[in-house]
Amino acid sequence: MELAAQTWPELGSYFETESLALVPLGSTEQHGPHLPEGTDHIIAESLARAAADRTGYLCTPTVNVGVSPHHRQFHGTMWVDAPVFRDYVESLVSNLTYHGIDRVVFVNAHGGNITHLREVGRRLHDREEAYAIEWMWDESIPTLVSELFEQNGPHGGPKETAMIQHLAGELVREDRLEDAHEGGVVFPTDDSHRNGARTFYDCIDNSANGVFGDQTDATAEKGKRLFEAATEQLCELCEWLDEQPFEDLVAKPHV
Amino acid sequence: MELAAQTWPELGSYFETESLALVPLGSTEQHGPHLPEGTDHIIAESLARAAADRTGYLCTPTVNVGVSPHHRQFHGTMWVDAPVFRDYVESLVSNLTYHGIDRVVFVNAHGGNITHLREVGRRLHDREEAYAIEWMWDESIPTLVSELFEQNGPHGGPKETAMIQHLAGELVREDRLEDAHEGGVVFPTDDSHRNGARTFYDCIDNSANGVFGDQTDATAEKGKRLFEAATEQLCELCEWLDEQPFEDLVAKPHV
Amino acid sequence: MELAAQTWPELGSYFETESLALVPLGSTEQHGPHLPEGTDHIIAESLARAAADRTGYLCTPTVNVGVSPHHRQFHGTMWVDAPVFRDYVESLVSNLTYHGIDRVVFVNAHGGNITHLREVGRRLHDREEAYAIEWMWDESIPTLVSELFEQNGPHGGPKETAMIQHLAGELVREDRLEDAHEGGVVFPTDDSHRNGARTFYDCIDNSANGVFGDQTDATAEKGKRLFEAATEQLCELCEWLDEQPFEDLVAKPHV
Amino acid sequence: MELAAQTWPELGSYFETESLALVPLGSTEQHGPHLPEGTDHIIAESLARAAADRTGYLCTPTVNVGVSPHHRQFHGTMWVDAPVFRDYVESLVSNLTYHGIDRVVFVNAHGGNITHLREVGRRLHDREEAYAIEWMWDESIPTLVSELFEQNGPHGGPKETAMIQHLAGELVREDRLEDAHEGGVVFPTDDSHRNGARTFYDCIDNSANGVFGDQTDATAEKGKRLFEAATEQLCELCEWLDEQPFEDLVAKPHV
Amino acid sequence: MELAAQTWPELGSYFETESLALVPLGSTEQHGPHLPEGTDHIIAESLARAAADRTGYLCTPTVNVGVSPHHRQFHGTMWVDAPVFRDYVESLVSNLTYHGIDRVVFVNAHGGNITHLREVGRRLHDREEAYAIEWMWDESIPTLVSELFEQNGPHGGPKETAMIQHLAGELVREDRLEDAHEGGVVFPTDDSHRNGARTFYDCIDNSANGVFGDQTDATAEKGKRLFEAATEQLCELCEWLDEQPFEDLVAKPHV
Amino acid sequence: MELAAQTWPELGSYFETESLALVPLGSTEQHGPHLPEGTDHIIAESLARAAADRTGYLCTPTVNVGVSPHHRQFHGTMWVDAPVFRDYVESLVSNLTYHGIDRVVFVNAHGGNITHLREVGRRLHDREEAYAIEWMWDESIPTLVSELFEQNGPHGGPKETAMIQHLAGELVREDRLEDAHEGGVVFPTDDSHRNGARTFYDCIDNSANGVFGDQTDATAEKGKRLFEAATEQLCELCEWLDEQPFEDLVAKPHV
Repeated sequence: MELAAQTWPELGSYFETESLALVPLGSTEQHGPHLPEGTDHIIAESLARAAADRTGYLCTPTVNVGVSPHHRQFHGTMWVDAPVFRDYVESLVSNLTYHGIDRVVFVNAHGGNITHLREVGRRLHDREEAYAIEWMWDESIPTLVSELFEQNGPHGGPKETAMIQHLAGELVREDRLEDAHEGGVVFPTDDSHRNGARTFYDCIDNSANGVFGDQTDATAEKGKRLFEAATEQLCELCEWLDEQPFEDLVAKPHV
Repeated sequence: MELAAQTWPELGSYFETESLALVPLGSTEQHGPHLPEGTDHIIAESLARAAADRTGYLCTPTVNVGVSPHHRQFHGTMWVDAPVFRDYVESLVSNLTYHGIDRVVFVNAHGGNITHLREVGRRLHDREEAYAIEWMWDESIPTLVSELFEQNGPHGGPKETAMIQHLAGELVREDRLEDAHEGGVVFPTDDSHRNGARTFYDCIDNSANGVFGDQTDATAEKGKRLFEAATEQLCELCEWLDEQPFEDLVAKPHV
Repeated sequence: MELAAQTWPELGSYFETESLALVPLGSTEQHGPHLPEGTDHIIAESLARAAADRTGYLCTPTVNVGVSPHHRQFHGTMWVDAPVFRDYVESLVSNLTYHGIDRVVFVNAHGGNITHLREVGRRLHDREEAYAIEWMWDESIPTLVSELFEQNGPHGGPKETAMIQHLAGELVREDRLEDAHEGGVVFPTDDSHRNGARTFYDCIDNSANGVFGDQTDATAEKGKRLFEAATEQLCELCEWLDEQPFEDLVAKPHV
Repeated sequence: MELAAQTWPELGSYFETESLALVPLGSTEQHGPHLPEGTDHIIAESLARAAADRTGYLCTPTVNVGVSPHHRQFHGTMWVDAPVFRDYVESLVSNLTYHGIDRVVFVNAHGGNITHLREVGRRLHDREEAYAIEWMWDESIPTLVSELFEQNGPHGGPKETAMIQHLAGELVREDRLEDAHEGGVVFPTDDSHRNGARTFYDCIDNSANGVFGDQTDATAEKGKRLFEAATEQLCELCEWLDEQPFEDLVAKPHV
Repeated sequence: MELAAQTWPELGSYFETESLALVPLGSTEQHGPHLPEGTDHIIAESLARAAADRTGYLCTPTVNVGVSPHHRQFHGTMWVDAPVFRDYVESLVSNLTYHGIDRVVFVNAHGGNITHLREVGRRLHDREEAYAIEWMWDESIPTLVSELFEQNGPHGGPKETAMIQHLAGELVREDRLEDAHEGGVVFPTDDSHRNGARTFYDCIDNSANGVFGDQTDATAEKGKRLFEAATEQLCELCEWLDEQPFEDLVAKPHV
Repeated sequence: MELAAQTWPELGSYFETESLALVPLGSTEQHGPHLPEGTDHIIAESLARAAADRTGYLCTPTVNVGVSPHHRQFHGTMWVDAPVFRDYVESLVSNLTYHGIDRVVFVNAHGGNITHLREVGRRLHDREEAYAIEWMWDESIPTLVSELFEQNGPHGGPKETAMIQHLAGELVREDRLEDAHEGGVVFPTDDSHRNGARTFYDCIDNSANGVFGDQTDATAEKGKRLFEAATEQLCELCEWLDEQPFEDLVAKPHV
């Protein structure tokens, strides 16, 4: 159920019996020479809507721009500063609780958002306003991802390429997959860490074309398998979260 | 040209010769018993994309949630607090300037965003980072709006109804247009102002069903005329803005 | 009753039966070659004190500096940044509630303060601390203003000139009224808006001497009529506000 | 020269040769049963205007409400929270520098503002925007104060009483001076400090009627002597400050 | 009892019967050619631990860096900006109240922290979270300090020198005590104030080597006497604070 | 070289040739029934001082309290809220650059600080003020950690126990190692994640006594090996960082 497509009386019916919302969040940032900059928010929105469709839970509009300063050297990367992003998401969810929402799944498709969404979740949790779970699609299906691709990449690699081939095939520049692969690198690189510490700040420090892994290994069919598997995981998570009594979700008391 | 659909090398070509971006902003808030809550962001996004399409200028993804606390008594209305909204939009545009953007049109379809977008525009202007214009579609075609509808309304009335009939007809609950009209009111009401001062804070203070005006007067065809006329205005504004030398856009010097 | 002229035991008596305060707010900014920079705060303070005098309600000291960055190109214009202004007024009123104040009229004489005072009012309203009404003197008597002056102006025009002639005649440079008129312009100008959007940020973009309208049309007598009429409106507003039960002033519940 | 009484062309002439401004700051807070709550801002404004008058320097409008939470238990005390006060004064002065002001004297008559004004001064100083001096009238004439009064008080005592008798005699409740004295106390009291630490937060912790010292010792004539002496000090300070080259006012370089 | 040396079950026992904590705060800043930059935090930590040891109250770890921008011209001075320092200490103490702490003594050894700690104390006080007392060691034993040293100094003088000689003698550069004395000055200097106002911002404005007073007058034995006397004062203060019913510590009600 | 033990002239000599500082950061939080709450800051400080000692680089005082709200249910856990922690560390490092520091190693021993230190690092990096590396001791020696302990734990397990046995043996409650082990758990637990998402917020959600792993496997000797190995890694990292030209550390330019 998409919130934006409903009228207020219809939403009133939803809130009578339900208190869960899916909030899709992505980014708008470079994804190499072959993928559109909207890759992450396209994936997040698609997964959230599919899960909402199958389960009947509410899905809000997508937060399209996230925390991506590490991609800024590549043309067109958009971002908001981290403190601002956190406050925006916090305000958005906090205000949703006014209607009775008390649990949220952040359907996230951008690694750079993870820690920020967890921090927002903690704020809401510690104030006992809502229980929010940060969910990142590829972390829900690690085995399948490994099975499908030999040289995966944390950014712009075959798993994201396959997802977009499946979801919005017309946006993939198929003729640049080879270029992407050759210009990109396998991550982590030798130079990316030293003595256990991360010694880079930006994507460009590790990859001249902004991507990693072997993009030529991606197909729309693999993308479909990823999408189905991740959607299933997300549906399960929502069902589980919905079943929890709110008192089990709030912070445990002091020992 | 949609930023989210492009790759970074393609955007690099755009930035070589252009420095303008359209940023669509709407809201997700109640629009009566007959219109979807996404009404404002659907309109903003449609106009921005159409203008980008016709002119070739860049259009960013849409900011879907705006400043709508005055609609919060109706189920599902989403909003972010005003200071947070301003900071989010400011950060988003300020970071765009990193790529060479120095002029922006906020394609806005929600009255509650206007003053905030102007304040953001001033911040960017006073720091000489970018020149941003707040543009609200219906204010660009006041004559046509008056011509088409007798009993217009500032919110959820025939002009917005017609736009959604044209843009996303399947989302209009046609069977509730009568209800919307009867339950709603003509604005401003007798009680809404006193001695020159606004004495209400929320939409519900003036309308029990959240909307104003005569929705039964709306048709998809009228919506099409509105859309075409407004898009034309927006295209003209972009062309004009693009032509200005940046030095004419920065603040005049002290007398 | 001026708060600043009372002792605490006297104010204790007031708070026993009353919970309303008038808070005058103006600006200190250029008003052309003929009017003092204090024009707005002189008007606001005079009106608030007159109404307090006639009705017996409490009037606080004046906030003399407001949000006037759009006049900064003219010597001496003072301003505080908008977020700071909002926080200052919010803190000031919020702390007044400690003594029992639960309703406030912002007696405002500067257009640039309006949206900020409404935002502060919303914060207080949504927290159910106090109900604040933003009242701008000239908006309470539009018919009289139109009647008295043919070429009015939004800033430094005949209506403000007449008010200062009445309230502080010695501060009007009568020998420069012609200059003011000739150097100033009729607003809105042809260049001030495009395609429905405001395309200026600063007063100087529209007027080389900082003012608008026909100042030669102003007289102290007209000023007196304006002042009396506006004071009457303000008194009525206070009486009405005082009569409302607080429960009628807080936000309506969720539908 | 009062900024608020000037027009912008006149102020243009001032800024051609001068870069100093006096900014009066007081408070609106209880001053016992005998003095008006505006005591501090009346004193600050009177001194600043007198000094501006005698020296020709510019005097801005007064900041009437300061940091007075420690007086809040007494009816009518107004205050703004400390961080907000600092930001307000900082913004006000920082924006003045746009016209060429680079040195400021804070003409202060409220002890509770001192540390905040110094902190604001440091911010301006460390950014090399302006050099601001916090000046508190009674600290400029300690010998005279001691000479005139035996039992002085830090708040609402004979020195402030005498000043108001001189400046606004009609606002002093002469018939309550005895009460003020008897109800008040000599400060510091036995209970106010322990082991070198201040163990109170509020004025009421030390004085049941909000004041200290022997108010019956005050006369308008003594007030006049205080006022004249303090004004002279202030004039001298302004002259000295005006003479300093700006490079002597900025922070010394690193050793 | 040092919090950092205890396990959580042991601290559970403490909180069963006690609600007081000592929080040591110092600075890391230049103390002349003869004293280590850690002088202030060494003193604060030593006093807090000694008092905790003798009384059994809880002592938290030390806040080592404070508000010292006025010493920044001398190599190595560390500081955090004042608003950040206040928020850090406020958050630290506010979170301690989660375990039952409702009274705190700030064991402070840096003059530049005083007003900030009092402001933090007020925030906690006004929210009725905790009662915090700012205690500065040398202000608890003014007579002894005067007795021991003829030419004292507010910074890096004989009293601090003696304390470090006693507490960490190996850190005192004894061979530079003469230099310190000769290069330093007696404070306040002739230039440090004008017309009752402080006309300096930085330590270097008054002292070329960063210190004041006669350091050659210091001995470890005098340091021991200072330390013992101050510790005794601190113990007494803690005992007194512990005895107060919490209702006596919260703000008195409105008159 | 410990900054706090030096005088300013000595530090002047350091800054003549060096621009690197080690900043130790830990936490003060529960570490089970057997370890002191200072565990993390003891480890961080010890490592930073050892590395500073061996390499000659500068080591600042320790930030003793970090971001630990997830341990708050256990008595005595101290923490500062995440935004405050970030601002504190940012201000501290930013001010260090005033003396010439342009590269920093955050010697961190608390997992909860990691993302915050990286965010601070990015702020400094993007402003080109300094290059800061977040270094967490156990991540620098993963092989050794795995070799030494079979059942490791992310918190309060054998690796931290061994470190404290080596560094401050008297603070380990040896008689509770068995209890710690039996009461604690192996992490991640079955319940801690669902469908790829972390579904807990607090340590107590996973462990009733606050710790994980097999503490009985720890010895001081193993602690010594860990300490030596980690110190070596840290020294190497400092040497490498020192060798980098600053231009190689700032952000790469836009493609």
